[in-house]
Amino acid sequence: MDDIKEGLRYAFQTKNVLTLAISGTGHSGMEAVLSNLLEPGENVLIAITGTWGDRAADMARRYGAIVNTVSSKFGTTLKLSEIEDAVARVRPKLFFIVQGDSSTGVLQPVDNLSAICRRYNCLLAVDVVASLGAVPFYMDRWGIDAAYAGSQKVLGAPPGLAPISFSPRARDVIFSRKTPAPVYYWDMKLVGRQWKCFDEDRIYHHTISSTLLYGLREGLSILADEGLEHAIQRHRTCAKRLYNELEKIGFELFVENEDDRLCTVTTVYIPDWVTWDDVALYMRRQNVTVSGGMGPTAGKAFRIGIMGYNATLQTVTYLINVLQESIKHVKLVTASKL
Amino acid sequence: MDDIKEGLRYAFQTKNVLTLAISGTGHSGMEAVLSNLLEPGENVLIAITGTWGDRAADMARRYGAIVNTVSSKFGTTLKLSEIEDAVARVRPKLFFIVQGDSSTGVLQPVDNLSAICRRYNCLLAVDVVASLGAVPFYMDRWGIDAAYAGSQKVLGAPPGLAPISFSPRARDVIFSRKTPAPVYYWDMKLVGRQWKCFDEDRIYHHTISSTLLYGLREGLSILADEGLEHAIQRHRTCAKRLYNELEKIGFELFVENEDDRLCTVTTVYIPDWVTWDDVALYMRRQNVTVSGGMGPTAGKAFRIGIMGYNATLQTVTYLINVLQESIKHVKLVTASKL
Repeated sequence: MDDIKEGLRYAFQTKNVLTLAISGTGHSGMEAVLSNLLEPGENVLIAITGTWGDRAADMARRYGAIVNTVSSKFGTTLKLSEIEDAVARVRPKLFFIVQGDSSTGVLQPVDNLSAICRRYNCLLAVDVVASLGAVPFYMDRWGIDAAYAGSQKVLGAPPGLAPISFSPRARDVIFSRKTPAPVYYWDMKLVGRQWKCFDEDRIYHHTISSTLLYGLREGLSILADEGLEHAIQRHRTCAKRLYNELEKIGFELFVENEDDRLCTVTTVYIPDWVTWDDVALYMRRQNVTVSGGMGPTAGKAFRIGIMGYNATLQTVTYLINVLQESIKHVKLVTASKL
Repeated sequence: MDDIKEGLRYAFQTKNVLTLAISGTGHSGMEAVLSNLLEPGENVLIAITGTWGDRAADMARRYGAIVNTVSSKFGTTLKLSEIEDAVARVRPKLFFIVQGDSSTGVLQPVDNLSAICRRYNCLLAVDVVASLGAVPFYMDRWGIDAAYAGSQKVLGAPPGLAPISFSPRARDVIFSRKTPAPVYYWDMKLVGRQWKCFDEDRIYHHTISSTLLYGLREGLSILADEGLEHAIQRHRTCAKRLYNELEKIGFELFVENEDDRLCTVTTVYIPDWVTWDDVALYMRRQNVTVSGGMGPTAGKAFRIGIMGYNATLQTVTYLINVLQESIKHVKLVTASKL
């Protein structure tokens, strides 16, 4: 567990003492951030750049927070001025935003938000589930107060743990709550003691999955061996190749502006020149699973996830070959039916 | 996932449609039962026979329920009349009780509670984390409305999943809540859809750990192969042997009445005739870990867990041999220091 804390501090680029892995999937990281930092009746501002903002809003409402939202046009990022206007208007205790929204494939800049949040005295929480380890994220340098990821995305460990980190400022908020954290299982005052994040003896809170801990430790160790900069560059190179190849075939990407694209999950408009469901099915038979859309992209786009261990040019080439072959096959079948 | 649902229905002895595994440890099963069945301001009655009742009371308070408790003298069970008096007095929406409390080693009868609960129109929830698969538990026959376990106890799978089941009555309560379930992650209306418990298509809720699912499926398959009756008998035989051997050596069991003892976790008074910490340490060096006390038994008793795969007479014999050898060693060392 100590090794994992070290590995996570490296991945998050933080010195935060309260850094650990929650016993649950990425969703439980979202729950832990919202339930620890918000109290009933408090204002939260949630950025909606895809499904995950909606999910956070749903969770925060259940915890009794007053939920305000600011939404981007789907497929684009929120502009700094839009965020600043919303923060100034809402005066939230917490501003929540997703760095890489896997439903839309949008990469939201989060390096420039803390100045705004400090000006209006609000905490800044960032979801990095689909981005941590693949795109730059500097928790301390960027002044981020809470962040969480999933063990099974870029880190490539089995699903079931949610890396999470809280800044000293967020930690103080947690320790000075007027009401107890609403969920015992995610009460960071207790979970932090089990992970020995405070100057106290380790105290049992729940049975952490040893199996998953070993997996996460290995995933973090692989990331540290490679080095963050190299991993980020590798993901960027693969994504660029993928964009080029897809456009060469005639696909249109959902996120127009290349700088706004999340390199781990590429969203692509469903084409009108081939029966897409048949193509996806044929690809799956060759061990390549391409996801459907989700939330704002449901029925409009499909999603290609290339991350972590899989983020190699070989994988991109293989995917493109299978894709082209599948399109050819479906076109032939369609033609033969005419 | 369908196989797991079938395996869990066998383990719980139920036909409940809403039977699945929560993505979290045993604790998250407790959270799921309380958060789905209680709404703010509602009365809950919690039986305290050890640490786990206290834990449930803590959780329920956080969810805004009005918590009432009825406690046994530690090391003994609650009598039926005590329970009936408390239910009649409190008139709770939900009565919560632990079948096998691993902190005290007490086995609470739960076969005779539903008549009382029906009379006072309250739901009956039973924690079977430390007991399911090792002692008789007939969810449907005994009229139990909610029950949950842990994947890593008797079932012997890796920790990280919490088997859970709700009766049709409990399900109706969940579906007619006035307020949304307070925690999205455990909202059974949503989790139940992902597990295809309702007549609807499977709908994504969160990324379930495939690794843990395969482990749990295997654990359930092993239980089904052996058969519940045989597994229960095996645990009983081992426990009886363990009690006899411990008493022969001169240990005193924390739970006086043999019928009140939980066969999976045996609580034993710390002896005054040998330095117990040294014995436990010496045993650990021989790969036998004996736990300290917990909650009411902390500092008073130690705990021997023999369950699932380990519940064999060979294990008991090995444990007793190592225990005797360790006592001999510690006595010799102590004598040589005098």
